Amino acid sequence: MRSTPRRFRDYPSHMTEQLHIDIANCFTDRVGATHGIAAADLNAAQSRMGDLTDRLAEMDKAGETRWRGLCHDPMRKEHLGAVSQVVADTNAYFESNSSGKRCKHLVVLGIGGSALGNIALQSALKEHVHNLTPCTHRIGPRLYVLDNVDPHFVGDTMRYLEIKDPGLKHTAVNVISKSGETAETAAQFMIFRDWLKSHLGDSYRQHIVAITDPSRGTMRSIVDVEGYATLPVPDGVGGRFSVLSPVGLFSAAMCGIDINALLAGAAAMDLRCRLREFKSNPAATIAWLLMEFNQRGKGNHVMMPYCNALYSLADWYRQLWAESLGKRVDLQGREVFAGATPIKALGTTDQHSQVQLYREGPNDKVFGFVDVSEWDRDVTIPSNLKVDAISYLQDHALSELIAAEKRATEYALVESERPNFTITMPRLNAHHVGEFIQLWEVITAYAGLILNINAYDQPAVETGKVATFGLMGRDGYADWKAKVEARLG
Amino acid sequence: MRSTPRRFRDYPSHMTEQLHIDIANCFTDRVGATHGIAAADLNAAQSRMGDLTDRLAEMDKAGETRWRGLCHDPMRKEHLGAVSQVVADTNAYFESNSSGKRCKHLVVLGIGGSALGNIALQSALKEHVHNLTPCTHRIGPRLYVLDNVDPHFVGDTMRYLEIKDPGLKHTAVNVISKSGETAETAAQFMIFRDWLKSHLGDSYRQHIVAITDPSRGTMRSIVDVEGYATLPVPDGVGGRFSVLSPVGLFSAAMCGIDINALLAGAAAMDLRCRLREFKSNPAATIAWLLMEFNQRGKGNHVMMPYCNALYSLADWYRQLWAESLGKRVDLQGREVFAGATPIKALGTTDQHSQVQLYREGPNDKVFGFVDVSEWDRDVTIPSNLKVDAISYLQDHALSELIAAEKRATEYALVESERPNFTITMPRLNAHHVGEFIQLWEVITAYAGLILNINAYDQPAVETGKVATFGLMGRDGYADWKAKVEARLG
Repeated sequence: MRSTPRRFRDYPSHMTEQLHIDIANCFTDRVGATHGIAAADLNAAQSRMGDLTDRLAEMDKAGETRWRGLCHDPMRKEHLGAVSQVVADTNAYFESNSSGKRCKHLVVLGIGGSALGNIALQSALKEHVHNLTPCTHRIGPRLYVLDNVDPHFVGDTMRYLEIKDPGLKHTAVNVISKSGETAETAAQFMIFRDWLKSHLGDSYRQHIVAITDPSRGTMRSIVDVEGYATLPVPDGVGGRFSVLSPVGLFSAAMCGIDINALLAGAAAMDLRCRLREFKSNPAATIAWLLMEFNQRGKGNHVMMPYCNALYSLADWYRQLWAESLGKRVDLQGREVFAGATPIKALGTTDQHSQVQLYREGPNDKVFGFVDVSEWDRDVTIPSNLKVDAISYLQDHALSELIAAEKRATEYALVESERPNFTITMPRLNAHHVGEFIQLWEVITAYAGLILNINAYDQPAVETGKVATFGLMGRDGYADWKAKVEARLG
Repeated sequence: MRSTPRRFRDYPSHMTEQLHIDIANCFTDRVGATHGIAAADLNAAQSRMGDLTDRLAEMDKAGETRWRGLCHDPMRKEHLGAVSQVVADTNAYFESNSSGKRCKHLVVLGIGGSALGNIALQSALKEHVHNLTPCTHRIGPRLYVLDNVDPHFVGDTMRYLEIKDPGLKHTAVNVISKSGETAETAAQFMIFRDWLKSHLGDSYRQHIVAITDPSRGTMRSIVDVEGYATLPVPDGVGGRFSVLSPVGLFSAAMCGIDINALLAGAAAMDLRCRLREFKSNPAATIAWLLMEFNQRGKGNHVMMPYCNALYSLADWYRQLWAESLGKRVDLQGREVFAGATPIKALGTTDQHSQVQLYREGPNDKVFGFVDVSEWDRDVTIPSNLKVDAISYLQDHALSELIAAEKRATEYALVESERPNFTITMPRLNAHHVGEFIQLWEVITAYAGLILNINAYDQPAVETGKVATFGLMGRDGYADWKAKVEARLG
């Protein structure tokens, strides 16, 4: 039985301190011949997937996947050093210039790949009440990631900060934009720079940390004139693959997240994802499964953590999966309209919202559960309310209840022939979150190769950008305004 | 041209104070013959849709859609009166028993239909910084809706409340469960009751408001013994249709939301949705379009507000759409696996995450934008940073930028032949949110009729519930534990 998928059930049970992947519910013996994958198909894919592993190794050597090296030296060492230095300098500045008090508020200005990773790390690794908690009980500043230009969202945050920190002496702004020309981030930057300046005078410069291209572009030219502290968006690392670069690391480190452990976890996972033996390589396995299901009419890919803190990682995954794989043409330029639709859901919450559809609606989905083995903090259900119908709950911990609910949902999906798999985090910590991030980045790379598309560009975003320029009156884009009006009336 | 879909573009432009619906981008003249709907098909649907309008009116008369009457008298008057009374009593209690201070923290225990509406109303109609804002600058208590049994999520909220309100004198708990047997809510209730009791002694009873079945069930029997203030989950109103009942109204009213205006808006929309003339009836029109697209291979239904505050309404819609329409069998018992997959997205944020897929991936989606005409508060982009590449932004308001981005995205989707429609809120207020809620509930009712399924049950959720009972050791469910183990190993 060594070569059947059954062995994946316990994969890799002997290594308890790494992500555990269970794909058993994807196969015919669990979900039936119509909707499951035959073990033989998995075995038959070894040769092709081994070749793709070689191909990815070549691309890595050729410098085509620089994101993959973020967790390895020399980039790892370089970025950890640079980020730690700017964190130390920022903290020192606030301690010396704010009557001995530290930075209390950190506002991140960024969108897409310059925001989703920051939000995901914060949600996964800090308490959900972090921003609510008084600074006496909190490590690090409150963090606000402003990834939209909604006037209420932005303006209300500013008004709130003026209540809490009237002179803005304890407020830092971290602007993240490779080019500096992303309209949303540029607009926010103009607003926040002016706002800091009006409150702080010339010292506003010390309240801004810019993460941008190290040598060129609009933001770089601004930074060079203004003299902010800066960190690099590394060359050749696209936005959605940048969370393990200074883009994601700076705000995380400011809030006290162990970025060293994050990168160590990513590096450990990366080694597993370089194994040529397909079924020992979690990225190759999951990529193959998802693309196989995609081809068989299951192109809706649900990521469903049973853990509130991990829900934002599903948003990060949504960008990675959608933007990397959603492509009109393949590498030969043929129209293929490739891609799969990432969907986020939360257990147990969405059992009471989405599971009815997931079990009884069109069988067009694959479900990726994410769960946690050991919770650092738990709550026990007390036994002093004697009511028959609910007394079975007493003396159980919430961790037991959420685990039972997850298993029950898995069972219910299997009963309805809906394939699913589970990624288990031994604990909720930076190491395992790092593993998770690297895993999905490499899965995406494999999926791109399987689909035969370019996983690293985003050509379709361009039209919306230039049409926005036109509508906002940017010089040279007037024809776009005309085009929009002609089309939409 | 009166009978062509073109007239919908300005529908209903003469009434500026109601939701505006624009469906022009669904038709062949905009998105092409392959992916668009012909105007003739819309016209041909008048007779059938008129019949469904009659059918819904009959169902309403027969008491089969009691949710529809929540915004009309007598239920409206009755619930407004009862909710206002409990809000007044609760506030009076806290003012007299907490050294003259009011209720500062309101914890809602509920899940699914007992939580999503509460979250949506709070997000839509209170500032996103509401919970962060000090009580000197805030109307109403902080609101925490605990719609999961994640041990960190629940436990960290409790620990935080013990920091802010060590004796819990300013903390109220609102438990929402029709039966009282929903495992997640029951577990939370046991925990919070015990926790309040241990801090407050016998007066804990005055800190709990229960919303439950008015006459029967486990929670009702607890309430009768314990003597909490209560409000009804009205008979015949299912969870996902209950936001305009006390289920959603109590926490909203506690936080200062104008629940009167909310119901008035819903009632106004309901009248529009009773028009037999199909194309003047926004619910009939949208339901027909979405079900038509569903049948034509576009079963992924994206709701994409260009407004952070409205993003949680998309979660509320997700439950409504998924749980109502995702059904294995039709009304004649034939296996149909009906349903459409609701997906939430946020503009502009997801332009940098999902739009690449939306434009170039499989053409299997319909996009429903939601936008806001007049923003109550705005932010202007200043003009004191002279940089050529971004100076086009200066002196514009963020409201202009977000509107341009929305229009640009609409244009980009149309260019790629992706059908979409827009629901516009004249302003972000309770009246229009009420309209929006009623609109989608009636759309769902129409869609259920078109699909010929029961939109009001959720049979598939049962398996997960009883399997959870089995795994948690509830008496009489041991066989379910055995079944799960046999299936999942």
